[in-house]
Amino acid sequence: MQRMDNDMPFLLQYENVAWYENGKVRILDRRIYPTEVSFVTCTSYREVVQAIADMVTQSAGPYTAVGMGMALAAYECRDRTGEEQAAFLKQAAWDLAHARPTTANRYGIITNHCAEAAARAREEGKDPIEAIVEETVASLNRRYHTMQIVGDHLAGLIPDKGTILTQCFGETIIGTVIRAAKKANKEFRVFCAETRPYLQGARLTSSCFAQMGLDTTVISDNMVAYSMEREGIDLFTSAADSIARDGHIANKIGTFQAAILAKYFGIPYFVTGIPDADKKTKDDIVIEMRDPSQVLSYRGIHNTLPEVKAIYPSFDVVPPHLISGVVTDKGVYSPYVLNQYFDTEVRNFY
Amino acid sequence: MQRMDNDMPFLLQYENVAWYENGKVRILDRRIYPTEVSFVTCTSYREVVQAIADMVTQSAGPYTAVGMGMALAAYECRDRTGEEQAAFLKQAAWDLAHARPTTANRYGIITNHCAEAAARAREEGKDPIEAIVEETVASLNRRYHTMQIVGDHLAGLIPDKGTILTQCFGETIIGTVIRAAKKANKEFRVFCAETRPYLQGARLTSSCFAQMGLDTTVISDNMVAYSMEREGIDLFTSAADSIARDGHIANKIGTFQAAILAKYFGIPYFVTGIPDADKKTKDDIVIEMRDPSQVLSYRGIHNTLPEVKAIYPSFDVVPPHLISGVVTDKGVYSPYVLNQYFDTEVRNFY
Repeated sequence: MQRMDNDMPFLLQYENVAWYENGKVRILDRRIYPTEVSFVTCTSYREVVQAIADMVTQSAGPYTAVGMGMALAAYECRDRTGEEQAAFLKQAAWDLAHARPTTANRYGIITNHCAEAAARAREEGKDPIEAIVEETVASLNRRYHTMQIVGDHLAGLIPDKGTILTQCFGETIIGTVIRAAKKANKEFRVFCAETRPYLQGARLTSSCFAQMGLDTTVISDNMVAYSMEREGIDLFTSAADSIARDGHIANKIGTFQAAILAKYFGIPYFVTGIPDADKKTKDDIVIEMRDPSQVLSYRGIHNTLPEVKAIYPSFDVVPPHLISGVVTDKGVYSPYVLNQYFDTEVRNFY
Repeated sequence: MQRMDNDMPFLLQYENVAWYENGKVRILDRRIYPTEVSFVTCTSYREVVQAIADMVTQSAGPYTAVGMGMALAAYECRDRTGEEQAAFLKQAAWDLAHARPTTANRYGIITNHCAEAAARAREEGKDPIEAIVEETVASLNRRYHTMQIVGDHLAGLIPDKGTILTQCFGETIIGTVIRAAKKANKEFRVFCAETRPYLQGARLTSSCFAQMGLDTTVISDNMVAYSMEREGIDLFTSAADSIARDGHIANKIGTFQAAILAKYFGIPYFVTGIPDADKKTKDDIVIEMRDPSQVLSYRGIHNTLPEVKAIYPSFDVVPPHLISGVVTDKGVYSPYVLNQYFDTEVRNFY
């Protein structure tokens, strides 16, 4: 298997995202990285579903984890008949895809590919488990290949010696934009909003940029306007968990307000990623509501009196009028004409 | 001593803010409340300075703590000559006032009043320590008296059964607006932005409102736009650490962006407090930069790799065009004519 991640930060190395081996899937626990480097080991695909639901891995991590989870499912049913195996994998493909609602469509493409790879392998007398692992790595490579083009486009938009603000953890784009900038000998500073309650920005995004030698500063989520006014932010960028054809995007909670603030300060906001063919409008975007106790606490320390409530919307939706451009593998689209992305052939991304 | 705090939440009870007794000042440790109820005991006024610098108490807490610290200073120099006592208290008044830069002007009014009260007591053969404690409680009562008028005005601006968003912990206004609303039989819901890194909103503001029976919800600082769009926020309000005559105000970091977001959503933003006579323009506002390690960690748990940096501006500045009104004891002023506040006699507030 040829791999494209050799020059990537620790967090993005394939084995550290999620990996199947000998009846187990090992997933880096991103809930505690980088305070601790620790892995969660799953011995059934349902444990992989639970790990994704619990955000052991997130961002694009689940794209790999659901594939490796399919390999584990194939291992679990290895002694059954071919028909039973197909039924078991069909169920696993559905369960893994629906570990989280907002990106179920994307996970589902991957798990279905894995089920198909297993079926082909069985027909050809090959090992379905191995076929699924190979399909998962191939899928990862496809995404890196496509996202490298996106990363090249994004790097082209960043002024040399400029400063960008990120929101949350855009897994593949972080790796590829760093690679693109290094190739072009371009330097830039990074400000990472910490992204409560899970602190993806503080823990994951900043780790990747800093490990690759970029000047990296973390701010709390209430310092965005201050930083835009006084710290010379040139560009705000984020990935997206949904990119609807009508130019609405969903990303980690806080992206919406950072986009409003960018507009206020005249700072461009570029969304990176591949539009979702099956999401026509914002009405097709589902916002996952997570356990509000995470907002009331941090790593087990409760911050409030028992009678205080919280809400925890995982994502928010940014309307097209706040988006300067959607950076895709086919170039930078105005969000208002994003539908045109589908006028030409679409690369197999998942 | 007549006191006005009998119907106030735990955090606002005078003894829990800061209290002098028998050569010690006891200050509620707001860094860990309500997870733990614990007091820091200071045995010299310099320890009070340090406690304020370390944010053991904040918001209006230091207004009381500097007064009680002056009582402690008077205790420390009790055996010296009158002249030496005066010199010692003069130094203490300066040191306590400058425990934090943004509000040094306000603290200084209080510490100078205390030094004057001690001087008068000495002339009259009375106990200067007792005189300072009395002056501090009188000052607290003055502030509550004036802020009750402000609280009445603010309560009048909140729609019945409406929802307000708060930022940080506006000590006296929280107590007085609750009292005003109860008196007027008005109900409202409160959303508190958690206010990282110190979490005043999650820990202090929400505790006060919830203890007094109001429906209270905490959001992380990146959920402000989401809540304004989807949770029916009717009004955004904050206190201010500086209110300049030109209509610029400084308040806890994050207030600026919440004000921009309020403008975007057409939600009024009301600042409460008494304008600073000595701050003519925004150039007279000093933004305190605090230890950035607090942004990189939470209650001792470090979140980032060692090479990652942070910034920690304590406050940000909101320009007048984002402020719907400054709610004072003399009524609600447009920020553009705030100077008129000083056209009529100004109550002794500190």
